[in-house]
Amino acid sequence: MTIAVANTIAETRDRVAAARTAGARIGLVPTMGALHAGHAKLIETAHAECGFVVVSVFVNPLQFGPNEDFQRYPRALPADLEISGSRGADLVFAPAVEEMYPVEQLTFAEVTKVSDNLCGAFRPGHFRGVATVVLKLLNIVQPDRAYFGEKDLQQLAVIRRMVRDLALPVSIIGVPTVRESDGLALSSRNAYLNVAERRAAPVVYRALLKMRGLCASGERDAAVVKNAAFDVIHAEPLAKVQYLELVNAEMQLVDRVDEGVYAAAAVWFGTTRLIDNIRCL
Amino acid sequence: MTIAVANTIAETRDRVAAARTAGARIGLVPTMGALHAGHAKLIETAHAECGFVVVSVFVNPLQFGPNEDFQRYPRALPADLEISGSRGADLVFAPAVEEMYPVEQLTFAEVTKVSDNLCGAFRPGHFRGVATVVLKLLNIVQPDRAYFGEKDLQQLAVIRRMVRDLALPVSIIGVPTVRESDGLALSSRNAYLNVAERRAAPVVYRALLKMRGLCASGERDAAVVKNAAFDVIHAEPLAKVQYLELVNAEMQLVDRVDEGVYAAAAVWFGTTRLIDNIRCL
Repeated sequence: MTIAVANTIAETRDRVAAARTAGARIGLVPTMGALHAGHAKLIETAHAECGFVVVSVFVNPLQFGPNEDFQRYPRALPADLEISGSRGADLVFAPAVEEMYPVEQLTFAEVTKVSDNLCGAFRPGHFRGVATVVLKLLNIVQPDRAYFGEKDLQQLAVIRRMVRDLALPVSIIGVPTVRESDGLALSSRNAYLNVAERRAAPVVYRALLKMRGLCASGERDAAVVKNAAFDVIHAEPLAKVQYLELVNAEMQLVDRVDEGVYAAAAVWFGTTRLIDNIRCL
Repeated sequence: MTIAVANTIAETRDRVAAARTAGARIGLVPTMGALHAGHAKLIETAHAECGFVVVSVFVNPLQFGPNEDFQRYPRALPADLEISGSRGADLVFAPAVEEMYPVEQLTFAEVTKVSDNLCGAFRPGHFRGVATVVLKLLNIVQPDRAYFGEKDLQQLAVIRRMVRDLALPVSIIGVPTVRESDGLALSSRNAYLNVAERRAAPVVYRALLKMRGLCASGERDAAVVKNAAFDVIHAEPLAKVQYLELVNAEMQLVDRVDEGVYAAAAVWFGTTRLIDNIRCL
């Protein structure tokens, strides 16, 4: 099976316009490539709901800090095309950096407050880069619906708020996290883990489950819930917690666990930083 | 003649969608109301080029500083409707602040560098507010073309850059400044001037003409050109210069006058701040 690939904004717009004229609902699945089963589920969900699905594959330099893994980030376009096509995508938009940013990008979308905590506190400028590229992709494709994984909890919250605040004419669909059988959330960065780190990594999800369990059994004190999770993770010597927090839907830290609270964590395994989250209540 | 008025985003979208379905090109003229002959020319230009013209009337709190004239800014909706209808507008979108910003606005469009000098240096946050509301209006109306006055030189440059950087599917049309017979650029803020200030205000345009004249006769040293303009304005005791600069199309200050350079000024007359500009070469 051969899927159509567009490397330019103009061709993407032409193909989307033709599908729209034909009456199709347009779906967009923005990705950085190196697609895994989590992305596959995004594409399948989009395919089930939309008549024309665009998967964008673009490792966005704007969302990487100067000491982060932009260069190292995995690229696998041939496999990405195969996965996209087999899950029902109609077009892969795979622009070069020069196509997306032909001149110095001077314009940025900033989502304040929602971007401040969690990853935002440790990756300055990250969500500015995410919001900016997503806004640009939305402007290029003009989809009716856009699909994002719930694994990137804060990203999803930032994008939902941006869409609301800017009255963007698109529905944002969150798709549940896909996990390995041992609970590790799928991530393109899992490929960085060595064997020992890979064996250790499910501790993150176990800690999140511990938090959800405590909340389910009535614990409402965020400090108590978090301390129990720290205990779980500290038992794994290869894991180094960057953050482990309880937040509301606007990604603000909470002292008490109420309806709609999420547990979110970022944990280092060697040089690999993994994030995960779970809804606690 | 009665023009249609929409106070909500939903109604505006419905009416625009109907016009689009009918095959009309959509034009948007974003304004803060208190329409004058400069706005009328924007509307006429849009009407000449588009089958359906939306005039937005919204005094945008985001673009006013805490000590600026948001409260004092003139409101004149009945007259605005009359002017809009008579010049060919098909719809006036006049939202309340609560319609545009129903919850705290956390998302902002920032256009760096282009926003740094001129008004941007004296009105921190102003262009962030302008870019954000224009982006939101563009998302609401989704026009094919949007019309802005060249009197607001830096605003036009900021919006052009935003549209380019974000790949917004709209053409930005600049419309030449309309002037009183004595050269004063039309502005809703001219209504603030008392009789003496009004008499003094054309000195700004005379200074700009002086700059253009020097450039036309071969002067290329920006300092020489600016000094001559300062001499013109300093002869008017009611005028206090905030800035008077020569800039390129990206609103960067230049030392030498080259093709595409503009002279731009902001001048206080009492409590009224007026801006104007002219292309020098």
